[in-house]
Amino acid sequence: MATATSTFSVGRIALAGALRRAIGDDWVMTEPDEVAIYAYDGSVEHALPDAVVFPQDTADVQAVVRIAHELGVPIIGRGAGTGLSGGAIAACGGIVVSTSRMNRILEVDYRNQRAVVEAGVVNADLSAHTACYGFHYAPDPSSQAACTIGGNIATNAGGPHTLLHGVTTNHVLGVEFVTLDGRIVTAGGAALDHPGYDLAGLFCGSEGTLGIATKAVVRLVRTPAQVRTMLASFAEVAQSSAAVSGIIAAGIVPAAMEMMDQISLEAIAQYVPAANLPTDKAAVLLIELEGVAAELEPQEAAIRRVFAEHGAAEVRVAADARERALLWLGRKSAFGAMGRISPNYYVQDGVIPRTTITGVLAQIADVSDFFNITIANVFHAGDGNLHPLLLFDDRENGALDRVIECGTSVLQVCADAGGMLSGEHGIGMEKHHNMGLVFCDHDLERMQLLRQVFNPRNLFNPGKIFPTAVSCAEVNNLRRGVTADPHP
Amino acid sequence: MATATSTFSVGRIALAGALRRAIGDDWVMTEPDEVAIYAYDGSVEHALPDAVVFPQDTADVQAVVRIAHELGVPIIGRGAGTGLSGGAIAACGGIVVSTSRMNRILEVDYRNQRAVVEAGVVNADLSAHTACYGFHYAPDPSSQAACTIGGNIATNAGGPHTLLHGVTTNHVLGVEFVTLDGRIVTAGGAALDHPGYDLAGLFCGSEGTLGIATKAVVRLVRTPAQVRTMLASFAEVAQSSAAVSGIIAAGIVPAAMEMMDQISLEAIAQYVPAANLPTDKAAVLLIELEGVAAELEPQEAAIRRVFAEHGAAEVRVAADARERALLWLGRKSAFGAMGRISPNYYVQDGVIPRTTITGVLAQIADVSDFFNITIANVFHAGDGNLHPLLLFDDRENGALDRVIECGTSVLQVCADAGGMLSGEHGIGMEKHHNMGLVFCDHDLERMQLLRQVFNPRNLFNPGKIFPTAVSCAEVNNLRRGVTADPHP
Repeated sequence: MATATSTFSVGRIALAGALRRAIGDDWVMTEPDEVAIYAYDGSVEHALPDAVVFPQDTADVQAVVRIAHELGVPIIGRGAGTGLSGGAIAACGGIVVSTSRMNRILEVDYRNQRAVVEAGVVNADLSAHTACYGFHYAPDPSSQAACTIGGNIATNAGGPHTLLHGVTTNHVLGVEFVTLDGRIVTAGGAALDHPGYDLAGLFCGSEGTLGIATKAVVRLVRTPAQVRTMLASFAEVAQSSAAVSGIIAAGIVPAAMEMMDQISLEAIAQYVPAANLPTDKAAVLLIELEGVAAELEPQEAAIRRVFAEHGAAEVRVAADARERALLWLGRKSAFGAMGRISPNYYVQDGVIPRTTITGVLAQIADVSDFFNITIANVFHAGDGNLHPLLLFDDRENGALDRVIECGTSVLQVCADAGGMLSGEHGIGMEKHHNMGLVFCDHDLERMQLLRQVFNPRNLFNPGKIFPTAVSCAEVNNLRRGVTADPHP
Repeated sequence: MATATSTFSVGRIALAGALRRAIGDDWVMTEPDEVAIYAYDGSVEHALPDAVVFPQDTADVQAVVRIAHELGVPIIGRGAGTGLSGGAIAACGGIVVSTSRMNRILEVDYRNQRAVVEAGVVNADLSAHTACYGFHYAPDPSSQAACTIGGNIATNAGGPHTLLHGVTTNHVLGVEFVTLDGRIVTAGGAALDHPGYDLAGLFCGSEGTLGIATKAVVRLVRTPAQVRTMLASFAEVAQSSAAVSGIIAAGIVPAAMEMMDQISLEAIAQYVPAANLPTDKAAVLLIELEGVAAELEPQEAAIRRVFAEHGAAEVRVAADARERALLWLGRKSAFGAMGRISPNYYVQDGVIPRTTITGVLAQIADVSDFFNITIANVFHAGDGNLHPLLLFDDRENGALDRVIECGTSVLQVCADAGGMLSGEHGIGMEKHHNMGLVFCDHDLERMQLLRQVFNPRNLFNPGKIFPTAVSCAEVNNLRRGVTADPHP
C-alpha cells in the first residue's frame, strides 16, 4: 500500500503566498494541521496535501491552475471526498482544489430537461431543487446526500437506479473544465449532439487527470408517476442470482435491482433496524419498478412468477412511501453499516456479465476462505456491478497488505469472467496496479498520450489510474526543474 | 466547394504491388475506371482514390495500414458509402478501405444482450439476424438497409427511433480499431463499464480520423411487445412544432417523433404513393409508441389531447403492421424522393433545442427566400435534429456554390439558437469550414492533438472534420518525404 506524503517543502511559503494573492487569504489553507483532514477520502489511502484551496468560480480555478503550472506543483480536484478509490487524495502532495463553494445551480430549463450546475453542487441538492417541478437528476450513488456532480463526473458514478437510467456519462451533456495552461475547455453542451470528438464523454470518468471541472450541463429526468418497491429473500445466493437473470429474460428492466447477502443484511439490521430487512436468508433482492399503474401491475405479476420459479422465501411490496424510503435507507447505508461488524472494510467494484453472477460469487467465497477474510456482498445485481466488502482490522499487523492482496484476487476473478475492475468508483490510487489485468501496455500508453493533450506535465492528479510507480518521482523532478520524460 | 483529386502518381505501381502482395490480387483495385465509383458517397463531394482495397479481416486491415504508413499515403475507411457529408471520400487521394467483405456477425449473446460484429455488417442485417429471438439493434438510420455498423460508428449515426433509444454511441460498448502503426486497440468491450478513458466513446463519431474500425461489441435491445404508429397533419408548421413540445411536456417520450413539411410530403407522395401521407397540409407528425397495450392506451389518449389542443386536422393510427411499414417506408424514402422534384439536393443536419423548432423553421424559411432556394424539411422533431434539404440543379452555373452558402446560413441559424452543426451525419469534408461557428480555435486544436495520439501523421481520412485547408498539401509533403508540422 503506497502511503505517499508530500516531499514539497522548499517553496511552500511561495506557494501559499501566490495562492492567497490569487483567491484571497480566507480561501487558502496550508498549515499541516488544517490540511490534515484533506489527507483522506472514503478509501483506505491517505496523503497530506501542501495546500487546500476553495475557489469561488471558474476564474479562481484558472488562477490556481496557473500557479500550479508555474511552480510545477500537482493539483487535485476534490468534491465531497466520498470516493472509494483515493481519487481525491494528493498522492504526490500538491494543491487540493475543493469545489465546496462552487455549489450554485446556475440554470434550469425544464422544457428542454437540462440544468447547468457548478461542479460542487451536491447530487441530491439538484434533485431536491427540481422535485417540485416533477424532475430529478437520475444517477443516485449511495453517497448522494454528500457527493458532488463534479466528483460524480470524475468517477463516472453510478447508483442503484442507473440500471434503467444509465450512469453519469449518460446524463452529462457538457462539461466546462480548466486545462493545465489555465484555459477553459467547453466540451459538449445543451445540444443533443456535438460534432468533433466527444470531449465531454472523454472527460467523464477521467478522475481529475485531464483538468478541473468547473461546470456541467446535465439532463433532468421526469420523476416517475408511480414506483413499486419489491423485496424477496432466498435461501441460496444462486437462487437470487438466477432470479435476476430471469427478470431480465422476461423482458423487464426494473429501475433498480439490488442484491444483499446475509452478512450485509446482518450489518444493516444492526445499523438501521427500522429498514426491517430479513436477516435469516442467504440473499435479498430489492427491486424497484417505475411507470404508470397500468404497466406496473403486469410487471409485478411477472416478477412474482420469476421469484416463485426460483424458490423465493418471502416476497414483500412496500406499502407506502415511508416503507419504501426505509428499504432504500437500509440499502444505501450498507457500507456505513459495516462499522457495526468490522473495524475496517475494503470495497471492490468489479463488473461482470450479469449471467455469471452465481459462479463469480462462488469463486469470491473461495477467495474469502483462502485468505480467511470475511467478504460481504451488497451490489447492483441488474448491472452485474459487484461490491465485495472485505472486512478487516487495520490494527492487526500486515492486515492491510493481506486484504489488498485478497482484493486483487477478487478482481482477477471478475476479469477472468469477462468483467472489469471498476463499475462506478474509479481506479484512483487503489487499483492502478491492477490495470494490467485488463489492459495491455499499448492501450495504457495510448491513454497516457491522451492525458498529455490536456495535462502535458502530469500535474493533474498524478499517481492515479495508470500503473506508473514512478509518477510521484517524476512530479518531484519537475518541481526541482529536472526535465521528466514526457511519455511516462 | 473543394473538389480534391489525387496528386499521387509516383509510386502508384509500388503501392498497387505492395497492396496486392499483402491481401491478394483479387481484393485490390487501382485502375482509374475501377476506382471511379468510389470517388462518391451520399454527399455532393467527390475525389478519386489511388486504390480501393477489400480486406477480409483485421489482419488484412493491419497489413494495409502498415503499407499506408510506410508509403505516407492517406487511408480512408468506407462502409456502404451512404454518408451525407463526404466522410468516406478520399479527399486527398489514397487508399479507400471498403469493409464490404468484413460482414460477419461473430457472436450473439442474447442473455446479456450483446453482439460482436465485424465493421462491415449491414445495420438492418443485424436486426434481421436477431429478430426471431425478439431482439434488434436500435439505431435505425434511414439508410439502414445498406449502411454498415462501422460507418454508423464513424458518424455516431442516429435514426428516427433514437429519440427513445439513443444514438450509436449509446449502443456501442466496444470497438476494435487499427491505429497508424498497424496495432490493434481494443476499446471498451462487453462489460458494463471500463475504467481508464472512454476510448470507445472517443472513437464513436471520429469519422475515420483515429483509425479503421474492424469489430464492434454492440447492445441488442428487446423488440417491443407492441407498437402504435400515429400520424397527425397540421395546417401550420408552428402547430406541429408546438405539439412536439406538448407531447414531451405531457411526460411522454415516444420511440420516434418525426416531422415532414408539405414540400417533403409532395415528393414522398410521388415516390411512394402507397405510403398515403397527406399532402394538403403544412406539416405531418409521425409518432411511434412502444410498450405493452396497457401503457399505449393512455399514451395515445394523451397524445390525441395534445394534437387537439394544437389544432390537428387529421389524426390517424396505423391499423396493422402493413400500414405501419408503409408509413415508415414513406418517411425513410424522403431523401430519395427529392429526386422527383429536384435534380439535386444538399442536406443539412443541424440540431437545435426542441423548444426552438418553430422559430428556427421560420428563420430557415427566410434564408430560403433570401437565396431563392427551395428548402424542404423532414426531420427528427423529438430530438430537435433538423434536416433542411436545399433543392438545386447542379447543371446551373454557380448553383452548387450558392447552395453551400445557403447551407452555411442555415447552420448559422441553428448555431444562434444554441444548436449544433450535425446531429448524426458527421462533419466530413462538407461542413469542416463551419466548425468555427461553434468551436473556438483552442478547442479545435485540442481535438487535433487528440487525433495525433492515434493518427500522428494525419493519414487517416485527412481533410475531414477540422477546418484546416492545408491538410492535403501536408499529406502530399509526407508522400514526398518532406517533414510536415506535427501540429496541423
